[in-house]
Amino acid sequence: MDRVAEVADLVTVALDELLPRADGPESRLTEAMRYAALGPGKRLRPYFAMEAARLFDIEERPVLRAACALECVHAYSLVHDDLPCMDDDDMRRGRPTLHKAYDEATAVLAGDALQTAAFDILLHPDTHEDAEIRCELAARLSLASGARGMAGGQMIDLLGVRDDLGGVARMQRLKTGALFTYAFEIPLIIASAREEHTHALLSFAHDIGLAYQIVDDLLDFDGDEDILGKAAQKDAAQGKTNFVTLLGVDQARHRVAHLADQARSHLDVFGPDAENLKASVDFVLNRRN
Amino acid sequence: MDRVAEVADLVTVALDELLPRADGPESRLTEAMRYAALGPGKRLRPYFAMEAARLFDIEERPVLRAACALECVHAYSLVHDDLPCMDDDDMRRGRPTLHKAYDEATAVLAGDALQTAAFDILLHPDTHEDAEIRCELAARLSLASGARGMAGGQMIDLLGVRDDLGGVARMQRLKTGALFTYAFEIPLIIASAREEHTHALLSFAHDIGLAYQIVDDLLDFDGDEDILGKAAQKDAAQGKTNFVTLLGVDQARHRVAHLADQARSHLDVFGPDAENLKASVDFVLNRRN
Repeated sequence: MDRVAEVADLVTVALDELLPRADGPESRLTEAMRYAALGPGKRLRPYFAMEAARLFDIEERPVLRAACALECVHAYSLVHDDLPCMDDDDMRRGRPTLHKAYDEATAVLAGDALQTAAFDILLHPDTHEDAEIRCELAARLSLASGARGMAGGQMIDLLGVRDDLGGVARMQRLKTGALFTYAFEIPLIIASAREEHTHALLSFAHDIGLAYQIVDDLLDFDGDEDILGKAAQKDAAQGKTNFVTLLGVDQARHRVAHLADQARSHLDVFGPDAENLKASVDFVLNRRN
Repeated sequence: MDRVAEVADLVTVALDELLPRADGPESRLTEAMRYAALGPGKRLRPYFAMEAARLFDIEERPVLRAACALECVHAYSLVHDDLPCMDDDDMRRGRPTLHKAYDEATAVLAGDALQTAAFDILLHPDTHEDAEIRCELAARLSLASGARGMAGGQMIDLLGVRDDLGGVARMQRLKTGALFTYAFEIPLIIASAREEHTHALLSFAHDIGLAYQIVDDLLDFDGDEDILGKAAQKDAAQGKTNFVTLLGVDQARHRVAHLADQARSHLDVFGPDAENLKASVDFVLNRRN
């Protein structure tokens, strides 16, 4: 999927321009933010935003800026999730996590400032000339990432309160699903998309987000740490239930395949324009890291 | 100053309504956010926003909502600053800090979600019918609180790199000055205030913010921990320079008095309407906690 790599490069270059720089002693903070946000990453959420945007007659620039904001929130969540008091991870994307490369205090602050930077980017007039659109983009991001979205999901994950499939699915919907969905909301908001298209893309987002998480759990179960770039068998070691511990490997794989088929079928409403997006499903789900 | 107490109550009631609630297991997160944001606090920044708003012909509701957002950012910064990896404080406002009352992971997450809540509140159409105003309110808050504002100031504070008055003043301007200034930007933005009034209020904000910090350093030097509700002599114990270690107590007190006079004089342009705001200066600077 050259297009995924192409978007990843676009996003990295744009983020490099958009992230704050500082000259004073606080440059340690902006450097840490860059370490977290500009390192190697699949940029999957930005890819989905950019590829879905091609279904509509809209400019690429506003979508790219919003995708960068989304990536800042994703990066901040990884930095804080990796902290010793949270998941306590030493490696991420094949490199030391931020609190290992810098220190814990800098990691807390850099995560904080990456979240702020996301809103800073979205709200800047360069993102879109229409303030209603900018407000909507920023308001949806706050909804997706706050206590009733990503942060709420991480709380459930930390508490470990999920002994059945419904509980695991609910946690996933908040922790990773909300930001996946936001990737598709970006073009939908900018295009003021009609109901039929909104429904199709949000259904696609739901299925692909859920399938992505099951693949994550499969990789945690039998992935190769060298390829993953991070520790594996984490859930088992911590006695946490996930889709694989609850369903078993075969059932989990079966469910991923089913969700992939279902996700692609949601896109039929767009006709041949959606071929790239459909083709990306296998790439996303056959990933090894 | 009954008006300060009155605004504090208004803000606490409004925050209670505006902060998210959750029914699921993530309610631990929303409860922690409430512990941090609804506890006893002077609500000085909201007070300044509300009192300055009276100088203009604008509605109170938008100002109150924006003041609540500002207080969410202030609360999040206290929660994260108190963490063991940052300033490692056990007491705040006479109660256990959030990571003591809950745990570190919950404190990190609650701080994160309080920042998100601030943007959520500002961007909601109920804050102002004009999306341009909502965007401007949110964009200025992101500027004041990010890497080139509050978070940058906290980085400088952590690094301890400030051996002269210029360095301490720069740190203060970022760490506490930016949010003080934002309090006055709220009514200025909502009223689309003219240049002369903007200049006067921002000058007032600068002087009062700086004076506030010097008072903070004086209280750290000789304040009563029981009245402060938190530990004192922290800077001295950590070998950190501040306005009092650099100026001495007498010079520091003299500078506060000078800044207070100067702050009041900036308000002359508003005539008798500014009497309340002028009167609040002594209240703010004679505080004992």
